[in-house]
Amino acid sequence: MNRNTNFDILPDRYLFKEIAIRASLYKEQHPDQRLLRMGVGDVSLPLPPAIIEAMHRAVEDLAYSNTFRGYGPEEGYEWLRQAVIDNEYTPLGISLDIDEVFISEGAGSDLGNLSELFDSKNSVAILDPSYPAYMDSSMMAGRKIIPLPCTIENGFVPDLPRQKADIIYLCLPNNPTGTVLRRAELQRWVDYAIDNHSIIIFDAAYEAYIEEDDVPHSIYELDGAQKVAIEVRSFSKSAGFTAVRCGYTVVPKETGLQAMWMRRQCTKYNGTSYVAQRAAMATFTPAGKRGINANLAYYKRTALIIAGGLTALGYEVYGGENAPYIWCKTPDNMTSWDFFDFLLNECQVLCTPGVGFGPSGEGFVRFSAFSQREDSEEALLRIKNGFRETLCVRPNLSR
Amino acid sequence: MNRNTNFDILPDRYLFKEIAIRASLYKEQHPDQRLLRMGVGDVSLPLPPAIIEAMHRAVEDLAYSNTFRGYGPEEGYEWLRQAVIDNEYTPLGISLDIDEVFISEGAGSDLGNLSELFDSKNSVAILDPSYPAYMDSSMMAGRKIIPLPCTIENGFVPDLPRQKADIIYLCLPNNPTGTVLRRAELQRWVDYAIDNHSIIIFDAAYEAYIEEDDVPHSIYELDGAQKVAIEVRSFSKSAGFTAVRCGYTVVPKETGLQAMWMRRQCTKYNGTSYVAQRAAMATFTPAGKRGINANLAYYKRTALIIAGGLTALGYEVYGGENAPYIWCKTPDNMTSWDFFDFLLNECQVLCTPGVGFGPSGEGFVRFSAFSQREDSEEALLRIKNGFRETLCVRPNLSR
Repeated sequence: MNRNTNFDILPDRYLFKEIAIRASLYKEQHPDQRLLRMGVGDVSLPLPPAIIEAMHRAVEDLAYSNTFRGYGPEEGYEWLRQAVIDNEYTPLGISLDIDEVFISEGAGSDLGNLSELFDSKNSVAILDPSYPAYMDSSMMAGRKIIPLPCTIENGFVPDLPRQKADIIYLCLPNNPTGTVLRRAELQRWVDYAIDNHSIIIFDAAYEAYIEEDDVPHSIYELDGAQKVAIEVRSFSKSAGFTAVRCGYTVVPKETGLQAMWMRRQCTKYNGTSYVAQRAAMATFTPAGKRGINANLAYYKRTALIIAGGLTALGYEVYGGENAPYIWCKTPDNMTSWDFFDFLLNECQVLCTPGVGFGPSGEGFVRFSAFSQREDSEEALLRIKNGFRETLCVRPNLSR
Repeated sequence: MNRNTNFDILPDRYLFKEIAIRASLYKEQHPDQRLLRMGVGDVSLPLPPAIIEAMHRAVEDLAYSNTFRGYGPEEGYEWLRQAVIDNEYTPLGISLDIDEVFISEGAGSDLGNLSELFDSKNSVAILDPSYPAYMDSSMMAGRKIIPLPCTIENGFVPDLPRQKADIIYLCLPNNPTGTVLRRAELQRWVDYAIDNHSIIIFDAAYEAYIEEDDVPHSIYELDGAQKVAIEVRSFSKSAGFTAVRCGYTVVPKETGLQAMWMRRQCTKYNGTSYVAQRAAMATFTPAGKRGINANLAYYKRTALIIAGGLTALGYEVYGGENAPYIWCKTPDNMTSWDFFDFLLNECQVLCTPGVGFGPSGEGFVRFSAFSQREDSEEALLRIKNGFRETLCVRPNLSR
């Protein structure tokens, strides 16, 4: 047996695992300190009552012979797939076949596993910085990577790849920079994919955070996108399902990949938890929608407060609008990890070092707006006081 | 973009999807007929009260701020991993580190995904017949396959591979034949793996069905196995979790693969549903154990009844002891699919055609013992009468 040596060139630990380990080490050494977690993009508000009730009912179904069910369809129950189309796509004027919608236990798995559909020689273009799973899973598969830098200079809007990219990961609204693309800008990417016979893997995990009119919620709002795009969505950030585990992926038949994905899922996946699918279904009821919209509004306000607070403290910040993430330049040209360590040790605030999302993320950190409001406000206060007390590092207020 | 052409040599549909589609077609055309499902290995008894209560409590945890939780560790909660060790391995005298146990949403996913840890040039030895996901996922990865025939002649006990196999899938008790290996027989496979620097992926999904003393419940009962074996287990068949979705995989550090699997899971998996992990935890409580043992006893008795009934009708059957599957020779040398169609059309009984598990399965079908008792008994009656009424096909009673 020989190991897959593609793993050898990866950083030892996945970014968010590294942060979790550093956080628990710190907690061990400082058991009295309360850490404020603005690192991982994990929600903090409890699930709305309508969703909780649906989950209880689903659990009860499993308690009695006449309502018990075992394996569901690998691609998810028809009622949920139809509800996804009716609630998420039909209102946008997008027409999908029910067989093009695949329910899964989360967008994270699909984003990595989709790579299996393509020839191992195919190259992949990845925004730099971006969610590290695109890069890491592509490296595990031994793919050639084409990085697309997103910097202050280009407003975090990447240029089209200069060389032919076979696969393109796009995440909009972007994690970590919070960038969105207008309709005309995104159309250029679809056109590129059509011209170059590329496939776009479109990560729309944050579409619920879009506030502006001219920003597409789905890539299928663009002409020709059903020929060249797979769209991955999650209930995690929209409905707070990080513990529940449910997402979905749209693979249009026009891509020529729908049957392959069905084959892959039937072979390597045994369907999504029944309780999770019932929970997802409840997000489309009037009471469910009210509940998750209230939570979304809370996170959106928190994002604005964090962005505003950091700006007031003299930081250069991006995002926070149309996205739950604040992309923040480190003070005094500190490295991402130095600023991460400073915030952890001096302020007991967890962020995510920008360089973990790619080399162009060096000199930035990401704050997440998914914490409880009081914690975010407390974090801002600590950051303010942390700098007052440690004169060695402070924001460059001349900027 | 180029598709992964390894998919082109696969059968169009995954075996169990094909069966599900044929069954629903039949139901559409014959809405008044009641199908008796003895095809897919899916449980039918409701979950025991202790597990249902634990799931309700877990749902309640997600309803309130002070108990809410989001993402869990990608490898599963420590309390569940420790409970797995304490309840499943320590009693067998097996010592494992908690970091060697990985909770997942199901054995099916792990069995396929583990392939990613190995060089794509590595060959894979697969029992013929066996659970089709081993073969199909290996074909998707473009691996060279070494089939290991299991026939009446060798008592369904395969010979060791004659050529060097890098990866070996073993499922014991076997799906579909019901075969088990004694301690000394299994030790030969471990020794082979040590000698040939192979890795054994040991599918122990059916270990709860073992009744005999000399049959190992875990491959780690054998000397040296922690160097060469990964063990995959499921709560689906032991605790009826086919809708709940929870399993686990043990990757010993001695294999040199534990850190790689952690890296893979952190990158492409966001952890198992909290509700499912709480449900799994409840299987280790006294009340949970009583409940699942009662269900297991029921399925075991059903297996004996089916095996006995088919034998009385003149069929040549294997399995049904130490396993929930009955491996049945078709009458009059019918092909597997012909007998499948006969049982579906004449008896409204669903089985699984043996050839779907591999070429050596031709001329067999698999019956599953997971149905309700009355359905299994009714199926036996229908099979008896089906032959009486259709003289063209009948079991070869001279055997």
